[in-house]
Amino acid sequence: MSVRFDGGGTMSAHDELTRTVLERLEHTPDGRLREVMLSLVRHLHAFAVDVDLREEEWLAGVRFLTEVGRTCTPNRQEFILLSDTLGLSSLVNDLDHPAVDGASESTILGPFYVPDAPFRDDGASIVTVDLGGEPLLVTGEVTSTDGRTLAGAVVDVWQTAPNGRYDVQDTDQPEHNLRGRFRTDGKGRFSLRTVRPVSYPIPDDGPVGRLLRATGRHPWRAAHIHVIVSAPGHRPLTTTIFDAEDRYVASDAVFGVKTSRLRVFDRAADGSLRLDEHFRLPPVPSSVQSPQGAST
Amino acid sequence: MSVRFDGGGTMSAHDELTRTVLERLEHTPDGRLREVMLSLVRHLHAFAVDVDLREEEWLAGVRFLTEVGRTCTPNRQEFILLSDTLGLSSLVNDLDHPAVDGASESTILGPFYVPDAPFRDDGASIVTVDLGGEPLLVTGEVTSTDGRTLAGAVVDVWQTAPNGRYDVQDTDQPEHNLRGRFRTDGKGRFSLRTVRPVSYPIPDDGPVGRLLRATGRHPWRAAHIHVIVSAPGHRPLTTTIFDAEDRYVASDAVFGVKTSRLRVFDRAADGSLRLDEHFRLPPVPSSVQSPQGAST
Repeated sequence: MSVRFDGGGTMSAHDELTRTVLERLEHTPDGRLREVMLSLVRHLHAFAVDVDLREEEWLAGVRFLTEVGRTCTPNRQEFILLSDTLGLSSLVNDLDHPAVDGASESTILGPFYVPDAPFRDDGASIVTVDLGGEPLLVTGEVTSTDGRTLAGAVVDVWQTAPNGRYDVQDTDQPEHNLRGRFRTDGKGRFSLRTVRPVSYPIPDDGPVGRLLRATGRHPWRAAHIHVIVSAPGHRPLTTTIFDAEDRYVASDAVFGVKTSRLRVFDRAADGSLRLDEHFRLPPVPSSVQSPQGAST
Repeated sequence: MSVRFDGGGTMSAHDELTRTVLERLEHTPDGRLREVMLSLVRHLHAFAVDVDLREEEWLAGVRFLTEVGRTCTPNRQEFILLSDTLGLSSLVNDLDHPAVDGASESTILGPFYVPDAPFRDDGASIVTVDLGGEPLLVTGEVTSTDGRTLAGAVVDVWQTAPNGRYDVQDTDQPEHNLRGRFRTDGKGRFSLRTVRPVSYPIPDDGPVGRLLRATGRHPWRAAHIHVIVSAPGHRPLTTTIFDAEDRYVASDAVFGVKTSRLRVFDRAADGSLRLDEHFRLPPVPSSVQSPQGAST
């Protein structure tokens, strides 16, 4: 990291200030808060020194964050949007849900999950109001990474309508349109009917949208269906099915796409689309054991 | 920096995500914004990886920032307070006003400066309503770092009343109480009457106050008098006179104290306090020249 300064004396003044702040935080009673604050201050100060931050730029940053705060409402979380568009949300998801050998990969939850979606019968449609779109049949199975079929697992899905809006954002849609929970049968299988998901822009009429434009970026998310799969004795899986043919797959505005989660929908004889999906959940360890020894 | 992970494969996933975000920002049209954003993302991601940030901690951070935003009003800037208490404001001040050989050191401006304070006669008091306090006579001179006496320089001072409040925070004080501008005479000298400054707490009834308490810190600022000194042909000096005998000198809540700005007030025969101060301003270079060659 390059630092531009006139001399070593000035460098030491910054270092001394940073050291003073770190020493002050050493008295934080909670060990975890202390660890987080020390790292935060180190990186915050290193950032300011790296870019040789000017006072007017600092003030522009203060004003930006203030506006992000002002844009937050009960129905809009602009700080999460900021975190999403800087890749932080996806990074934290990776940290908190590291890849497990043989298990389906996790992705970010997103702000549009509703916990109480209705249970629907096997094969039922989650479309409760017709807003067009290409019919899509999703079938699949849920297994444990140890190979067992998981009967009675819950597959909770949600997506936008063909107009690019979730029910909670749209007065044209009844509650729970394009949402539903399904239970796997005795063979660990489920099926549901829906429409092909579409790409949609994240809300870009606030400060985060302005930052996207200033950095030459678009606000579009690649078309996707959200899923949470849960089964007794297993870690719940929050993941996404991405349409591999969507134009925004390589430039998703919130860095949410993982290669392992891309799917090409098959076209059936009647022209409708089909997907057969396999979710693999890691069991919750009942005791600490490493079946294959230490992995590297 | 320590990272706890199961293996190299997981590490690479984070690195790859960070690289993807950085590549996306490479298209930022403005070169300076690109530089700042690239460094910001590098440090933000490195922070999250360093502390192995959990989703619930990330959400706590989002909620904290949202509350900081909600606490901002036209009369209160909680993000500046947050920056102050993390030492960022003081660091940026150092970066933007690096020490100049022979010149008085700069300190942070603070949020209570009012640009239109009245000009007062030499020797006048800035106290317009008596709220107690120890009388203090401040005399001084303003010179250029090249040795010249600066006649007609403006010395703009402001401080809290003995109740710890600035006029703009306090309905008991008339406008411009404990504020005033003075002009240096033909010998570059000025004098004014005031009261001894007192230590006071920064506003701590919001999220920043809560963070101070959670990190075992107090909200007190060391007693001080703010000054901006300006003279034609010279760089304006924003600085502070700190009472060296104040109990918070070593633990100022916003890391604003610099050793070179500490002053011990003299006690005169009549019991009143006196300070003779010398402000040294660097001339604005009329052409780029290095009188002593390259400094190191």
